[in-house]
Amino acid sequence: MTITKKVYYHDTDAGGVVYYGRYLNYLEEARTEFLNQLGFNVKSLNDDGYIFAVKSCHIAYEKPARYGDVLECSAIVKEVSAVRIIFDQVIKNSHSNETIAVAEIQLVSLCGTSFKPKKMPKGLFEALKI
Amino acid sequence: MTITKKVYYHDTDAGGVVYYGRYLNYLEEARTEFLNQLGFNVKSLNDDGYIFAVKSCHIAYEKPARYGDVLECSAIVKEVSAVRIIFDQVIKNSHSNETIAVAEIQLVSLCGTSFKPKKMPKGLFEALKI
Amino acid sequence: MTITKKVYYHDTDAGGVVYYGRYLNYLEEARTEFLNQLGFNVKSLNDDGYIFAVKSCHIAYEKPARYGDVLECSAIVKEVSAVRIIFDQVIKNSHSNETIAVAEIQLVSLCGTSFKPKKMPKGLFEALKI
Amino acid sequence: MTITKKVYYHDTDAGGVVYYGRYLNYLEEARTEFLNQLGFNVKSLNDDGYIFAVKSCHIAYEKPARYGDVLECSAIVKEVSAVRIIFDQVIKNSHSNETIAVAEIQLVSLCGTSFKPKKMPKGLFEALKI
Repeated sequence: MTITKKVYYHDTDAGGVVYYGRYLNYLEEARTEFLNQLGFNVKSLNDDGYIFAVKSCHIAYEKPARYGDVLECSAIVKEVSAVRIIFDQVIKNSHSNETIAVAEIQLVSLCGTSFKPKKMPKGLFEALKI
Repeated sequence: MTITKKVYYHDTDAGGVVYYGRYLNYLEEARTEFLNQLGFNVKSLNDDGYIFAVKSCHIAYEKPARYGDVLECSAIVKEVSAVRIIFDQVIKNSHSNETIAVAEIQLVSLCGTSFKPKKMPKGLFEALKI
Repeated sequence: MTITKKVYYHDTDAGGVVYYGRYLNYLEEARTEFLNQLGFNVKSLNDDGYIFAVKSCHIAYEKPARYGDVLECSAIVKEVSAVRIIFDQVIKNSHSNETIAVAEIQLVSLCGTSFKPKKMPKGLFEALKI
Repeated sequence: MTITKKVYYHDTDAGGVVYYGRYLNYLEEARTEFLNQLGFNVKSLNDDGYIFAVKSCHIAYEKPARYGDVLECSAIVKEVSAVRIIFDQVIKNSHSNETIAVAEIQLVSLCGTSFKPKKMPKGLFEALKI
């Protein structure tokens, strides 16, 4: 799953480039659309009592992205267990195809009320395993 | 009530100045500290079933603020009714004393469950009227 | 010109709704795409020595937007002079068609080096007048 | 060096906690104040032709922070070379002393015009080595 994101002023900083923390917004969007494509909706999962908390984020910044750039941000599943999903994500410049950033994001499935680990819905687990 | 805010990269944009929407963060902080100073805590008010939603925001930008600038952001009450608070807020450069932005923010007191207008706690209303 | 924006977690707050300052990001995006559609690119204008600074923002919040909502954000020109553009902008929920927010944003054309008012390019002025 | 940050609505999300990307703002602030304390000002370094770009960010989220929480965010130098600084950073809840997040951030010193690696000023290197 790959989403296309255009860089507007609100994501840049006075260094003239996208602020390092703002890429995490793009990564969230790509993960959400990845799940949507599999037929899962984060809001419905929340309503069913599941939350997916980010447990860790490793991101390497290769090239800066700048105002007006169009980026491709992808998400694929690297590993999945009953309570954990690890995503591999890449952000590229869609024009030059240069890699902007590479990230590994680990999510944990939690109970929406106790915030304790809780096995994700079986259908989701099965869909992610493929 | 006046808070001091230093401008870091995360609030600037590629134009080299603070992004126009980011001042609204500073304004929120000043309003919150204004209420704290009166002895009211937004979190406790939320726990008691009140939320204060922003109904309108009028902001005039006079001078840009830049990376590293230190700003003073103030909040005073202009008007108050049982369900409404209008704040007058000013952001100044603390070094030059130049006005950066002037804002009028209207909040409404809502019930935290129905989201319908709900008279704010009497103690808060009395404290704001003075 | 109307853009479609989906609400992700990064734009929401602990009140469960889109944060009041984050709508200004959506408004920026709609104005940028409005200019693009007329054949003007903000980056090229910047490169040609023009910057368009937000002088004022008046925004009325009618209904909250929530996580997962899909919004339509429009921009039309209300008034234009040699150094000024006033945009009328509306954010609607694309599903219910309810108005989320209504904004009037005033931009001034500045010289990118002196930051003094500078007449916008004639072609842009002519295009905006129509 | 440790800074104190209070959590306002603008850093939280609809999950009721601080958004995972927003901690990177707090980390930036702590690194900046760390350098200030050593007598170095990021703006002056920029004016002298140096920029410090984030090359990688590894962050582990241990506990969520919530609206109204007061956090302590620290920065210490783990490693330094002529063109590289690695910071160890921790965010704690100042009330409970629980660890919220632990991060390792790698910065590279670049020439502000060519964006190529450039040895940082000797005085800065000496100060960071201690």
